[in-house]
Amino acid sequence: METGIKILAIDSSGLVATVAVVCGDELIAEYTINYKKTHSQTLLPMLDEIKKMVELDLDSIDAIAVAAGPGSFTGLRIGSATAKGLGMALNKPLIGVPTVDGLAYNLYGTEKIICPIMDARRSQVYTGIYTFERKEDKYVLKILKEQCAVPMEEIISVLNEIGKEVVYLGDGVPVFKEMIAEKMSVPYSFAPAHMNRQRAASVAVLGAEYYLQGKIQTAAEHGPEYLRMSQAERERLEAEKKKNGNVS
Amino acid sequence: METGIKILAIDSSGLVATVAVVCGDELIAEYTINYKKTHSQTLLPMLDEIKKMVELDLDSIDAIAVAAGPGSFTGLRIGSATAKGLGMALNKPLIGVPTVDGLAYNLYGTEKIICPIMDARRSQVYTGIYTFERKEDKYVLKILKEQCAVPMEEIISVLNEIGKEVVYLGDGVPVFKEMIAEKMSVPYSFAPAHMNRQRAASVAVLGAEYYLQGKIQTAAEHGPEYLRMSQAERERLEAEKKKNGNVS
Repeated sequence: METGIKILAIDSSGLVATVAVVCGDELIAEYTINYKKTHSQTLLPMLDEIKKMVELDLDSIDAIAVAAGPGSFTGLRIGSATAKGLGMALNKPLIGVPTVDGLAYNLYGTEKIICPIMDARRSQVYTGIYTFERKEDKYVLKILKEQCAVPMEEIISVLNEIGKEVVYLGDGVPVFKEMIAEKMSVPYSFAPAHMNRQRAASVAVLGAEYYLQGKIQTAAEHGPEYLRMSQAERERLEAEKKKNGNVS
Repeated sequence: METGIKILAIDSSGLVATVAVVCGDELIAEYTINYKKTHSQTLLPMLDEIKKMVELDLDSIDAIAVAAGPGSFTGLRIGSATAKGLGMALNKPLIGVPTVDGLAYNLYGTEKIICPIMDARRSQVYTGIYTFERKEDKYVLKILKEQCAVPMEEIISVLNEIGKEVVYLGDGVPVFKEMIAEKMSVPYSFAPAHMNRQRAASVAVLGAEYYLQGKIQTAAEHGPEYLRMSQAERERLEAEKKKNGNVS
């Protein structure tokens, strides 16, 4: 029985490509791939596959939730472009879900401190600090530190100051596991395989909360949040600085 | 990078059909459908779909984990038959994961009491009581009450006696929501859509733990655990009783 808000969700912010349809308290479909293929080859075929499998009428959805960054620049652009295209064609609103918030939502209801880490290269991570608070009969995501791009050492020292048990997840874990073991002074653990990477179902459920709060955008308004400049932008800026420096 | 034990997992114990491939700490693929189609129409095409998408060499898996019951009799038979066929053809061991344990594993790491409930009709539920305990740097599923078929009132009174906060999940939730609200004397909540039904990724990760403990079967040995007699068996038994009663 399908009742409640119906959300189509997409996340291609990292190596994982994931699509899901959630309706109220029910997950109708979720399809997740963590493989070397590029998202431009996987995302739309995956969506088409679940659309056929559950005979989904795209007109029946209320909104499209998309992991809105940070993450891989190309991945974010493919996700956003797909969501914008669908939103425009179907005349449905978009919900931009911060990527790191979406990852934290995998651990809905935990009393621990959640620290998703995505490898951002150049010895930084995309991260944030979260927990859940009970509010009436539900749990609400509480953001202790908003998603940001920082050196891994910095986030570890903030976690040590908070002083509560931490759960790490995300593709930064294999990269920074040794540093974590060395520098953490509070108990911590790593989320296991079924909850440690992007899941479109989590983006959908958190997206439904945003939808109820009126946090929606039109397809035209929506754009990804990179948090940092791309390599091309950095290089152009540096080249311009150099040039300006030379002429001044 | 694929390291660690590689598990192919299947769960068709309820309305949900779900398949996944997990390798060590990484989910390679997961595909979940909660739709009116019968599992005989969905399960193998879904497996074939992810096999193609991640170019999975079935010979590279270490074992096949399957939700081994309780659940829908037809669903369990389709899941077991599929797992047995694959295991026999590939010469790989099977891991039978109790369905209710697999559901509880969706909430890995929680400090709360977990109570999965599956509607078993005839005013009973398939259920069990679980929590997680920290052991070194991981969390281990602790079974407080093994999976069983009991009236819903009975499990509620056990939970009230334990006296700790409970998280409910499973397809029994919409059926017994009112009874829960009426009879629970301890705080409780319901798991949200992204964690409240069968997930093959959870079956795979729990299955990998069993694999390490040597809890494996050959394809020939494996069979589902129904926990109750089927309707046909009950009717035959009642007919026999009646017949015997008449002749004695």
